[in-house]
Amino acid sequence: IGTLWVRRPGTAPAAEPVLVGSHLDTQPTGGRFDGVYGVLGGLEVIERLNDLDAATRHPIDLVVWTNEEGSRFQYSMMGSAVWSQKMELEGALSLTDVDGVTVADELDRLGWAGSRPAAPSGAAAAFELHIEQGPILEDEGIEIGVVTGVQGLRWYTIELGGFPAHAGPTPMIGRRDPARAIAGLVDDVYAAVEAKGEWARATFAQFRSHPVSPNTIPETLTCTLDLRHPDGEVLEAMETQMRAIVTARCEATGVTGEVTLGNDSPPVHFDEGLVATIEQAAAAVGVSNRRMISGAGHDACYVARHHPTAMIFVPCQDGLSHNEAESITSEQAAAGASVLLGAVRAVAS
Amino acid sequence: IGTLWVRRPGTAPAAEPVLVGSHLDTQPTGGRFDGVYGVLGGLEVIERLNDLDAATRHPIDLVVWTNEEGSRFQYSMMGSAVWSQKMELEGALSLTDVDGVTVADELDRLGWAGSRPAAPSGAAAAFELHIEQGPILEDEGIEIGVVTGVQGLRWYTIELGGFPAHAGPTPMIGRRDPARAIAGLVDDVYAAVEAKGEWARATFAQFRSHPVSPNTIPETLTCTLDLRHPDGEVLEAMETQMRAIVTARCEATGVTGEVTLGNDSPPVHFDEGLVATIEQAAAAVGVSNRRMISGAGHDACYVARHHPTAMIFVPCQDGLSHNEAESITSEQAAAGASVLLGAVRAVAS
Repeated sequence: IGTLWVRRPGTAPAAEPVLVGSHLDTQPTGGRFDGVYGVLGGLEVIERLNDLDAATRHPIDLVVWTNEEGSRFQYSMMGSAVWSQKMELEGALSLTDVDGVTVADELDRLGWAGSRPAAPSGAAAAFELHIEQGPILEDEGIEIGVVTGVQGLRWYTIELGGFPAHAGPTPMIGRRDPARAIAGLVDDVYAAVEAKGEWARATFAQFRSHPVSPNTIPETLTCTLDLRHPDGEVLEAMETQMRAIVTARCEATGVTGEVTLGNDSPPVHFDEGLVATIEQAAAAVGVSNRRMISGAGHDACYVARHHPTAMIFVPCQDGLSHNEAESITSEQAAAGASVLLGAVRAVAS
Repeated sequence: IGTLWVRRPGTAPAAEPVLVGSHLDTQPTGGRFDGVYGVLGGLEVIERLNDLDAATRHPIDLVVWTNEEGSRFQYSMMGSAVWSQKMELEGALSLTDVDGVTVADELDRLGWAGSRPAAPSGAAAAFELHIEQGPILEDEGIEIGVVTGVQGLRWYTIELGGFPAHAGPTPMIGRRDPARAIAGLVDDVYAAVEAKGEWARATFAQFRSHPVSPNTIPETLTCTLDLRHPDGEVLEAMETQMRAIVTARCEATGVTGEVTLGNDSPPVHFDEGLVATIEQAAAAVGVSNRRMISGAGHDACYVARHHPTAMIFVPCQDGLSHNEAESITSEQAAAGASVLLGAVRAVAS
């Protein structure tokens, strides 16, 4: 599937590797750090150990996962999903871009179609270093986030069906208007989700309506909803509440409502031992740190299904990512790489 | 501009014609009556007078206005707008469809590019017979609507600008989310408009957001708003209130809001004498009737700028139009044409 593995050998022939790395692909208008920072951070660990001529018992494998963003070929964390057996190799290879080019075509063209099976083959530990992609560390003035897990995520499509009628002659009373339903629905879902505490998230996006006419009550109004929570049971309760809200708002406005579940990613809990290792590495280099949850998905989610895994976050400016203005300072970059180095050495030695 | 004029001569050489007619073009998924009924009704008046061998003092001109719907070439009431000098001929001829074909190209291809100037040349009266395109006559069981005027209409584009951030790591508090703004905005505008009485209308449509990503807070969320009222001062007040709502909701949610006025059609008041003529014609054939306002625009709006004008409505099933299911009964069709015949004879004699 095109995932790149770069090994620094260890001294014990049978010892399983310590994995470091992330991804090099970006969003269409993404920045220079989301993914890339974790790969270069892992490479820096290897280079630093080489500079120090410091041997480790375990090999260190730098991994560059293919197509984490799912931008050109629409399946996010594709490389690690195939590797972890979440997705079938053939299915991934036959994904097409908007021009009909397949993943297989492009791997062949680039010479990246490898011979080694994309499957777990043992690891002592896995670390992924990444920018936070949120504002919490920056807001609190903390240098390192020790990531204990990743929020569960569910994507829905909500389609509201109205009765298309002429904007002029049709009285306001009796209209079956999806715009009226969406207004209350958005408000109610936000209120319900905010009542679930600081880690609950709801995001409405991809609004569109049909027909494309300014003087017809919309026949359909569609949007997506992204719900997240680190606790699977709370996430389930959020879905139940959301579905009840859609039903109630549709009944009140005389429109039809259909909720379709798409992507469904359960919460991930990282390895407690590695979380402690990262905290110790941070303390050893004297950088402030706090435990936190990742709101975004990462390749580490799939890696964690097979190996002890944890993540290290550094703050990013304004919490901004998926944007060309994405930025971190040299000091922030160095702090994260130093913590990664310490954690890797602790496990690999 | 391709408008068709069919004259039945009168007996007085200098007498100005009485105009009847409507349009033959439809919406892409429109029905068989919107426009077509008014043209065939006018033709039936001429045929009936011919059958009766009944001369009139004034000529009767059946007019088929070009491109009333503005579907393929996006300018509604194009033919009558050019004729009334509201729109320049050259501008209309150079309108293009989605394939880049111009109105001029198509008029040439069809042989419809005429030599007679598209401009008012005098008329004693003008009548347009049309389906109501709303539910009022049907709901009240009334056979004929005597149309005293047409609602003023203003089209707006509302563009809300948020801060695009990742749906997962970004806390709910502090988001600048256009979805949150649109929810309250729609509710508030509906409430404000409904307080303006039974003839006030507000229709939100053409929703779209950017980027097309389920896990990014939208950077922009755009929709159109169609406001209507028969009284220009009330319509102006509705706009003022709507702009204040957009400002308030945007400030409350930290998003930017821009309201752009597009189409701006002032209310039209038809000729009181012709309205009375229609009422008398309805009474003469024994059909029930009521005065009413047209919620939709018609070619008659532009004709009324130059000649005494009025319209006759018949009920349509479920108030439905711009839909292939659009329907009227033979009896309803005959009643409307009979009233038109009576009104035309009253003026043309």
